[in-house]
Amino acid sequence: MQDFEFTIEKGQLYCLQTRNGKMNATAMVRTSVDMVREALIDKNQALLRIQPDLLEQMLFPRLDPNTDLVPIARGLPASPGAAVGHAIFDANSAEKLGRSGQRVILLREETKPEDIHGFFASQGILTARGGKTSHAAVVARGMGKPCVAGAEGIHVDVLTRTAVVGKYTIAEGDLITIDGTTGDVYLGEAEMIEAVFTSELEVLLQWADERARLAVMANADSPHDAKQALKYGAMGIGLCRTERMFNAKDRLPIVIDMIVADTTKKRQLALDKLLPIQREDFKGILKIMTPKPVTIRLLDPPIHEFLPSEQQLVKELDQLLQLKDTVQGMNVLTDAVEQLYEGADEHNQVRYLADSHILEEVIQKKTTILKMVRNLFETNPMLGHRGVRLGITFPEIYSMQIRAILEAAAECVKEGSNVCPEIMVPQVCTAQELIRVKSYVDEIHPQVEEKYGVKVEFKFGSMIEVVRACMRADYLAQEAEFFSFGTNDLSQATFSFSREDAENKFLPMYHDKKILQDNPFEVLDVKGVGKLIKLAIEWGRETRPDMRMGVCGEHGGHPQSIQFFHKIGLTYVSCSGPRIPSARLAAAHAALLEE
Amino acid sequence: MQDFEFTIEKGQLYCLQTRNGKMNATAMVRTSVDMVREALIDKNQALLRIQPDLLEQMLFPRLDPNTDLVPIARGLPASPGAAVGHAIFDANSAEKLGRSGQRVILLREETKPEDIHGFFASQGILTARGGKTSHAAVVARGMGKPCVAGAEGIHVDVLTRTAVVGKYTIAEGDLITIDGTTGDVYLGEAEMIEAVFTSELEVLLQWADERARLAVMANADSPHDAKQALKYGAMGIGLCRTERMFNAKDRLPIVIDMIVADTTKKRQLALDKLLPIQREDFKGILKIMTPKPVTIRLLDPPIHEFLPSEQQLVKELDQLLQLKDTVQGMNVLTDAVEQLYEGADEHNQVRYLADSHILEEVIQKKTTILKMVRNLFETNPMLGHRGVRLGITFPEIYSMQIRAILEAAAECVKEGSNVCPEIMVPQVCTAQELIRVKSYVDEIHPQVEEKYGVKVEFKFGSMIEVVRACMRADYLAQEAEFFSFGTNDLSQATFSFSREDAENKFLPMYHDKKILQDNPFEVLDVKGVGKLIKLAIEWGRETRPDMRMGVCGEHGGHPQSIQFFHKIGLTYVSCSGPRIPSARLAAAHAALLEE
Repeated sequence: MQDFEFTIEKGQLYCLQTRNGKMNATAMVRTSVDMVREALIDKNQALLRIQPDLLEQMLFPRLDPNTDLVPIARGLPASPGAAVGHAIFDANSAEKLGRSGQRVILLREETKPEDIHGFFASQGILTARGGKTSHAAVVARGMGKPCVAGAEGIHVDVLTRTAVVGKYTIAEGDLITIDGTTGDVYLGEAEMIEAVFTSELEVLLQWADERARLAVMANADSPHDAKQALKYGAMGIGLCRTERMFNAKDRLPIVIDMIVADTTKKRQLALDKLLPIQREDFKGILKIMTPKPVTIRLLDPPIHEFLPSEQQLVKELDQLLQLKDTVQGMNVLTDAVEQLYEGADEHNQVRYLADSHILEEVIQKKTTILKMVRNLFETNPMLGHRGVRLGITFPEIYSMQIRAILEAAAECVKEGSNVCPEIMVPQVCTAQELIRVKSYVDEIHPQVEEKYGVKVEFKFGSMIEVVRACMRADYLAQEAEFFSFGTNDLSQATFSFSREDAENKFLPMYHDKKILQDNPFEVLDVKGVGKLIKLAIEWGRETRPDMRMGVCGEHGGHPQSIQFFHKIGLTYVSCSGPRIPSARLAAAHAALLEE
Repeated sequence: MQDFEFTIEKGQLYCLQTRNGKMNATAMVRTSVDMVREALIDKNQALLRIQPDLLEQMLFPRLDPNTDLVPIARGLPASPGAAVGHAIFDANSAEKLGRSGQRVILLREETKPEDIHGFFASQGILTARGGKTSHAAVVARGMGKPCVAGAEGIHVDVLTRTAVVGKYTIAEGDLITIDGTTGDVYLGEAEMIEAVFTSELEVLLQWADERARLAVMANADSPHDAKQALKYGAMGIGLCRTERMFNAKDRLPIVIDMIVADTTKKRQLALDKLLPIQREDFKGILKIMTPKPVTIRLLDPPIHEFLPSEQQLVKELDQLLQLKDTVQGMNVLTDAVEQLYEGADEHNQVRYLADSHILEEVIQKKTTILKMVRNLFETNPMLGHRGVRLGITFPEIYSMQIRAILEAAAECVKEGSNVCPEIMVPQVCTAQELIRVKSYVDEIHPQVEEKYGVKVEFKFGSMIEVVRACMRADYLAQEAEFFSFGTNDLSQATFSFSREDAENKFLPMYHDKKILQDNPFEVLDVKGVGKLIKLAIEWGRETRPDMRMGVCGEHGGHPQSIQFFHKIGLTYVSCSGPRIPSARLAAAHAALLEE
């Protein structure tokens, strides 16, 4: 397409100059496909005309660039796309309003796992605190919802239901607009340009897949995510995080029972309740993805992440103890009471608390949880008691998850689905850890096959996200059938940067002073982290030459990093759903540019 | 020496059997030297007869193995040796009692930098919380004082001045005994066997030095430590930590002023006060060590470590605000008041606080500090805003330290001492960081030479304690004249284990289940961390073939690890004073066993 400057003088047409016309993503894709159809260019040229980044324009809703609104605050662009909704200050209210069909932006100081139902109901998330790996950012990105995180100029006051930003005040219910691509926050409703997945884009990405050597998989934690992933053309699920499932509102109380259990038997009781729930989770995802592979990662985060904060518990207990004084003998309870015991459903709350015996039980339970929260406190949780370390100290947790995966697969097989589950162990640093977890699998697998009377195929693999795992890749490859590099954790460990701390504190200055050219959590650091991955690939393939190796960290969706992953011989990348199209295009570019 | 069994029957002597006699360390050393003098064995044989570990017996006071006392609690053996003293619950009282000539054991829930004066005055340290890298453990080890850390059975109540251990109660002033080699805690005074540094040991270690290829340097932070280090035969100081100097009681208020400064100018004012103090610190150490090298590490820990905890500040402010209500108009203050304002000396406290205007100032200052503490909060401080990252975000802090080092050296040169200072940058992950800090040095160095009118020689080097620094060793070696591997941090980053969390939570189980054979923070993990160090040495020497490279982490004093460091071609190890003799012997063993 050309921009043409011309003039007509005395009936004569003069062409003054011509240059390549600027097109938005949709037009670029369409003209490229059209020109191939008209044999003006070939498919390779069509693919190379389009920068992968550009596709994000098409795949996320964005603000109309002609908007009159002026941003009132700026945070981190934590999950791309723009969204409009009523500012709501807690997850329960967000859920109620969302269910009633309203558009909602969940606005919180910071989010916690127990807010997850508020995410589902919201158009987008806005937080005043936290970096790009804060809970809000990671969850929103996984769901493909826009998120602005760490907008520090916003002061949220949950009690008065207002947020103050300089001279502006956002009252609950006010319409706001957030732009997760830039980090901007606006008062009012901005004009939006909606996302589109055109038929031309589908054709183009088909061509891309034919040329790419890297497969593009999805990070997906639910049947809903899995369906989306297929829509975007995922060739499987490269990372299914099981902790998200633990966080759902109906499960969290069981998970907490499991954590505070003081005997293995009590813990087993809670796990027995979780088993069928997890089995259903896995079955849903496996079935949708049939016959594509689904890589399920066993529990990763430290378990204190499932518990409320110490501060919150102290406050709740304080209120409960005051309440106990007041309630003695009373049968009618105030509204305030209803909010205090979240474990039971609304209907039961009043009945529960009306009975001061029950109140006593709640107090005791909260006291136990508080004690556990203090017990589990860690100085550096990122480097703490998590991942496979949990799987070894509490074998019954991993055993439950392994059984749930294999039983889900067995049920699918019985129903005629040709499923392909893969069990992946996180935070591995030595082959001994893999050997031990494998021993759980070897015990459970025949039990499941016998119970269901079918053969269940599966693969067993390891995350490579600890530096030592890279150094020992040759030994790990004896136990693992595949590797998945977790580049986020690996980058943190390689730089000794905690992402949450670095992005808010010194990384901006490192960028300004040109100490680091790119944020290593967005663009893979080829010279350090990349060199380490390259060595690990070489050492791993010395043991298992055709070993399947991929990346499931966030860099898996970054075009420039994808080029590097292609070059060092990885088999696949895995990224969140909406980034899959640009990743597919980037994978094709990598292959084409190599020739 | 032989154990002999014999009998005499009817005047006839029968030798029944004979075997090598068991000897304690002192006897082993003495007989070895004697036998060389009598030409029964050669020097190499003498050296190899003695296991380096055994020397610890001689060099730390220990409990008489025949003691009748039974331990009442057990913690982590955090710093070897045994000590007896009166249990004292805070650093100020410990200092008072210690100065009056009493033996003191400082007994705390956990220690903080502001307790440092209590350490100096105590025979040993006992804490109820914290691991082997807790403040108490690291500081005690550096000072060569016994420490039992994380004795979780002990419940310290500072208010009632008692500590409860099961059925026992330790009241303040009670005599207790701690054994930092085993972690045991006893009520009462146990019999002790004192440390000795015999003339035979000196002879033996001389032979060791003649054979060793690895030089043994000391970790030392004060003139006192430096003198001790020389006594133990250190060939220089491999690690002088400057943050210890910041923690002294008379400096901490200035350091806090520096931290809470809201402008560069205010920060510079505080730094101007610190400069002459640091200069004197460095001068003292340089002078003692002349002409041996002294490697000074620029500020390393996150600055929030110099501030009181949020909890403590909230409590203090609460009390101060109550006091404000009470005090209004009063001129006489209660005893309680005196304890509240620690910044001023005792004499001034009463006068200060009697004036409610001053009280208001104290409240404001504490409020500012509290705000700063909250600002500086980090999720994973181990991976946070520290080391050279501080040196780049606050160039004036590193500049002050560099100036203090060079001015101290200049003064020594003027006084005729041939000093050898070395400036070392911590937490480096990219050559750009070194280039920037070097630019400060290049600006300050000629200024100092001009001011003093003398030539000042120095070296400039880098800590290698971040994984990325290993991967980029070839580039770092272009800027650094020497490398010092910080194996503690490097092990944490390589395993993704936070030592403080790991040692209390899952490492014991990892050991029991044989997942890891050794605690990687005590014995260097040769297969992972060692492999990484070996690569870094190779890459670094590609750039600078004769580069001096050493280890200044705790593994530098561990005999088995020393053997590995010898093998991979390091130049030196550095360890705390009392571990130097066994390190010298281990270095000789490594050389002898290689032949």
